[in-house]
Amino acid sequence: MRFKDKFDNIVKKNNSLLCIGLDPEMEKLPRCLTELKNCVFDFNKNIIDLTHDLVCAYKPNIAFYEAMGLTGLEQLKKTIDYLHEKYPEIPIILDAKRGDIGHTSAAYARYVFDYLKADAVTLHPYLGKDALQPFLDRKDKGCIILCRTSNPGAGEFQDLKFRNVPLYEIIARKVAANWNKNKNCLLVVGATYPQELAKVRRIAGDMTFLVPGIGAQGGDIKKTVIAGMNSKKAGMIINSSRAIIFAENPREETRKLRDQINNFRK
Amino acid sequence: MRFKDKFDNIVKKNNSLLCIGLDPEMEKLPRCLTELKNCVFDFNKNIIDLTHDLVCAYKPNIAFYEAMGLTGLEQLKKTIDYLHEKYPEIPIILDAKRGDIGHTSAAYARYVFDYLKADAVTLHPYLGKDALQPFLDRKDKGCIILCRTSNPGAGEFQDLKFRNVPLYEIIARKVAANWNKNKNCLLVVGATYPQELAKVRRIAGDMTFLVPGIGAQGGDIKKTVIAGMNSKKAGMIINSSRAIIFAENPREETRKLRDQINNFRK
Repeated sequence: MRFKDKFDNIVKKNNSLLCIGLDPEMEKLPRCLTELKNCVFDFNKNIIDLTHDLVCAYKPNIAFYEAMGLTGLEQLKKTIDYLHEKYPEIPIILDAKRGDIGHTSAAYARYVFDYLKADAVTLHPYLGKDALQPFLDRKDKGCIILCRTSNPGAGEFQDLKFRNVPLYEIIARKVAANWNKNKNCLLVVGATYPQELAKVRRIAGDMTFLVPGIGAQGGDIKKTVIAGMNSKKAGMIINSSRAIIFAENPREETRKLRDQINNFRK
Repeated sequence: MRFKDKFDNIVKKNNSLLCIGLDPEMEKLPRCLTELKNCVFDFNKNIIDLTHDLVCAYKPNIAFYEAMGLTGLEQLKKTIDYLHEKYPEIPIILDAKRGDIGHTSAAYARYVFDYLKADAVTLHPYLGKDALQPFLDRKDKGCIILCRTSNPGAGEFQDLKFRNVPLYEIIARKVAANWNKNKNCLLVVGATYPQELAKVRRIAGDMTFLVPGIGAQGGDIKKTVIAGMNSKKAGMIINSSRAIIFAENPREETRKLRDQINNFRK
């Protein structure tokens, strides 16, 4: 099934635009202090089992698994396998921010889509379209291009103006007009910049955005939803990681956040 | 030892600016068709043992190991361990093109520097300096920032002009003036664009560049060396991957290429 269809289906089924970032930092997992093997998978499984009917996607960031070495990557693979087996209707976004020349991107695409079996991946636009072509050619997969990121210094290059148009808008225009022949492109736009989010929405039509930055990073939910919704009052994958997975009651936190988001969609 | 010192020492010792890209694509390794385990390491070990006195660095691109899954990554780790043990004087550049918000970049830095034990890593500049700070803070490691890449479409964003200055030059200026407090920054500038290489040299003083794009990608050696050398007739890590590692006689190919490069340094 194409990523877009899988995503549209789950948004309806779970009535949710909320994505949970499965970013299990080792030092925050008490049981991991003595025994890494399986504890990351167990932690993820618990979160997934508690929240699978409330989310529109899961998004593991591969950096937190890589930081634990090969054992961590085994836990990532096990987590994705578990999701495919138990909850095949839920899209899996691998936040890996890859991007290299075409020959090398083809190898990355094999890793991300064929080996790890993610449904979508985040990508750096800096090398241009030809470099990302091996990803864009995968019609059934989601290619989520960095546009306006959520970090404090995002504007350093992304706001530079070319003939009065900032770089992040140029990227949004190119992706919408040129890169999206297979209708498999999405954009990353941070919740910490609602004005920029609204601008990208005007450029990108109904394209779906991955929106990090609420929760620990401080993005405002109301502003985010109002600025980012598409004409169908959807089109966003709003991610929360730390604020949910390390909460005392992850299910309650997830339900609350999903409902808050839905309140502003009305 | 700091990356810069390690690099300066080996350039003198081996009289070389040539770096070998250890990019063992599975389908090109005949013995791997039946048995992946160790065959990638054996392939790399053979190349390393044949060339260690002729190079200034080795540069595995992690994508080709990731494409083989965890077994591939084990082979990468084994290759790096072997280099540290047998040839500790040779710098190891991990071509991984990472870059995420600061919190996540810290996890990537742990993977690349502490787990895989690379001496330097390639990085995407798109998120700005604050995002890469956890890398920049590692005084002993090399941070190699993408500036002008070697792919055909590199100019799509990198050539966009802001107040008449193209983006790749703005990045070179920022890195040289602002990001390099620990004297641990390098830039990636492709051999396929000698004019741009010469411009970046004028901006970046004696900073060392990683220069991909000769060999299979078609960059001209003479133009590259003349455009890219610093005031000490060095300051470049000129990479060749496929043209050396899949050659009939990798040592002969390496020696020839090293000498060709040195000819134009005189």
